[in-house]
Amino acid sequence: MHALILAGGSGTRFWPLSRRARPKQLLALEGERSLLQQTVDRLAPLVPPEQAWVCTTRALADTVRRQLPELLPEQVLAEPEGRNTAAAIAWAVSSMPEELRHEPLAVLPADHRVADGEAFRAALGAAAGVAREQGRILTLGVTPRWAETGYGYLELGEPLPGPTGLRRVARFTEKPERETAEAFLASGNYLWNAGIFVFQGETLMREVARLLPELASGLREIAAEPESLVERYGRLPRVSIDHGVMERLEDLATLPLDAGWSDLGSWEALAEVLEADPGGDRRSGDVVTVETRDNLLWAESGTIAALGVSGLVVVRTGDAVLVLPRARSQEVRRLIERLETEGREELL
Amino acid sequence: MHALILAGGSGTRFWPLSRRARPKQLLALEGERSLLQQTVDRLAPLVPPEQAWVCTTRALADTVRRQLPELLPEQVLAEPEGRNTAAAIAWAVSSMPEELRHEPLAVLPADHRVADGEAFRAALGAAAGVAREQGRILTLGVTPRWAETGYGYLELGEPLPGPTGLRRVARFTEKPERETAEAFLASGNYLWNAGIFVFQGETLMREVARLLPELASGLREIAAEPESLVERYGRLPRVSIDHGVMERLEDLATLPLDAGWSDLGSWEALAEVLEADPGGDRRSGDVVTVETRDNLLWAESGTIAALGVSGLVVVRTGDAVLVLPRARSQEVRRLIERLETEGREELL
Repeated sequence: MHALILAGGSGTRFWPLSRRARPKQLLALEGERSLLQQTVDRLAPLVPPEQAWVCTTRALADTVRRQLPELLPEQVLAEPEGRNTAAAIAWAVSSMPEELRHEPLAVLPADHRVADGEAFRAALGAAAGVAREQGRILTLGVTPRWAETGYGYLELGEPLPGPTGLRRVARFTEKPERETAEAFLASGNYLWNAGIFVFQGETLMREVARLLPELASGLREIAAEPESLVERYGRLPRVSIDHGVMERLEDLATLPLDAGWSDLGSWEALAEVLEADPGGDRRSGDVVTVETRDNLLWAESGTIAALGVSGLVVVRTGDAVLVLPRARSQEVRRLIERLETEGREELL
Repeated sequence: MHALILAGGSGTRFWPLSRRARPKQLLALEGERSLLQQTVDRLAPLVPPEQAWVCTTRALADTVRRQLPELLPEQVLAEPEGRNTAAAIAWAVSSMPEELRHEPLAVLPADHRVADGEAFRAALGAAAGVAREQGRILTLGVTPRWAETGYGYLELGEPLPGPTGLRRVARFTEKPERETAEAFLASGNYLWNAGIFVFQGETLMREVARLLPELASGLREIAAEPESLVERYGRLPRVSIDHGVMERLEDLATLPLDAGWSDLGSWEALAEVLEADPGGDRRSGDVVTVETRDNLLWAESGTIAALGVSGLVVVRTGDAVLVLPRARSQEVRRLIERLETEGREELL
């Protein structure tokens, strides 16, 4: 079994820690290893580093290679630019050695958190078995733990022969309203869409040819004329693998993943998984407090001194400090938009 | 008329902006000029720089002289160490040229704010006239504008012949409880003690000899043996001019000062005098906000980005950031104590 780790994202949700040149997957948010490194580490007992591939952008490739010295340079595939996940995955699969096309391949984001690595590998291994034996495309669906409105959901269809829990995916549902999310959770018939897929490369490429013919022909042209990569890559259709392929498959299957998964989508999501001190604060770096409660206090550089505040995110980097209520962590993008409007490139 | 500006303070109330090596009086909290420079500027139409003296400590003297190039180096008197205000004032007066002892001298802190310089100079000028003609020691009392519990109060005694408002001081009252402060304010019979005094040097030195004989004899020994300054200065009694002299005088007089005075005793006191933007925030430096209200956002270095917070003080320097509710600004000292306990000398 091989793995393809998608590490081209450019999220701003962890600003000011995350920047264009240092997106979330390259940050060490827990411990010393970046989320990308932890993803490789987590796979290793099932997928050794020599079978792990990373797809990232040219702008990030050097940093990715430095973070992953255990990978050969050619295992880090550098897109000329980001063109969303359908292009990234299809291009990466078509760039990997031909003989791997019959092997099960796990495709997964580089910036998620998984508490239980063993359960994670067990689910991936079971999915790989199904992909190999049945030629199916699978998505791992996370057993929902609360009525999250920020995730997409998979509605479960009929059970399929194979390992326990293998079900057809009846439908993809976008981020639901609060009431809908609560109904999904109560029904027990929905899983979170975690963006983790398992398939044989040839199966995926066949579906891409059928569902995204423009992408398939673009990739054929690039394969025939590798020197045209930069020019042609910039014209590939920009569509997600979910919208472009997965949602349109009739026999997509899913296996449940119950491994303490989080997409760490915000400072608040990070706060929830970090250990709190007796006062309820989560802290990183040099932090001095008096009578504080339930804050996330993150000093990457310098000192944070706080007194009498609660429920805040305070993040200090060498050039900036962010202060906002934990409950409004998602809105950090509004500050980014302000910085973009004001042309503050040095902070982005 | 001459002036003696006391600039030896080492307050921590504006931490992390103020530090041991850069106390409040040397900071520019409004505009480009430090509080010390503004004090000299404010006096200038009444007391030209060549008649202004500054008493500071050796550790700060170089910075003080750099900030005040219009003063001769010998006009900046450098105590070997801080020994509170009685020693500072008496030593400074005894260090100034003998012939000035008959002139009225205004003694005032370097770190206060005065909105109305003209009214300030008028009050000082009137007090100087009384000091010259009646040989009295005067203190300027600020007409109270609210029931402040953080200041000392002067209780007014009988009217004295001289300019309008000249009264004997019946009593000094320490920082009162809330109820007492409200009664003081309602009575109209109390003024805030602003620590601004006017007297002839010889009058003050006579009272020091009477009330603080140990200080007087220490200063005589220093005068007789100037090379013993460092050793003997460190043994002078450590007492404030209020406790040691002013409170014990029987005929201390006061003139009211109604000139928009503030001692800028905290970040909150500063916030109250700074102009607010339409959202109620006070800002300095590079500050980016979304939906914030009534904060003091002070970026001496780098950027402060804030969203959805209100009533906070956020101060960012090159090495630290302070976050606390405006209403608890006075408690910044608790953070300083924590830093002292932890031996964080580099931050003090």
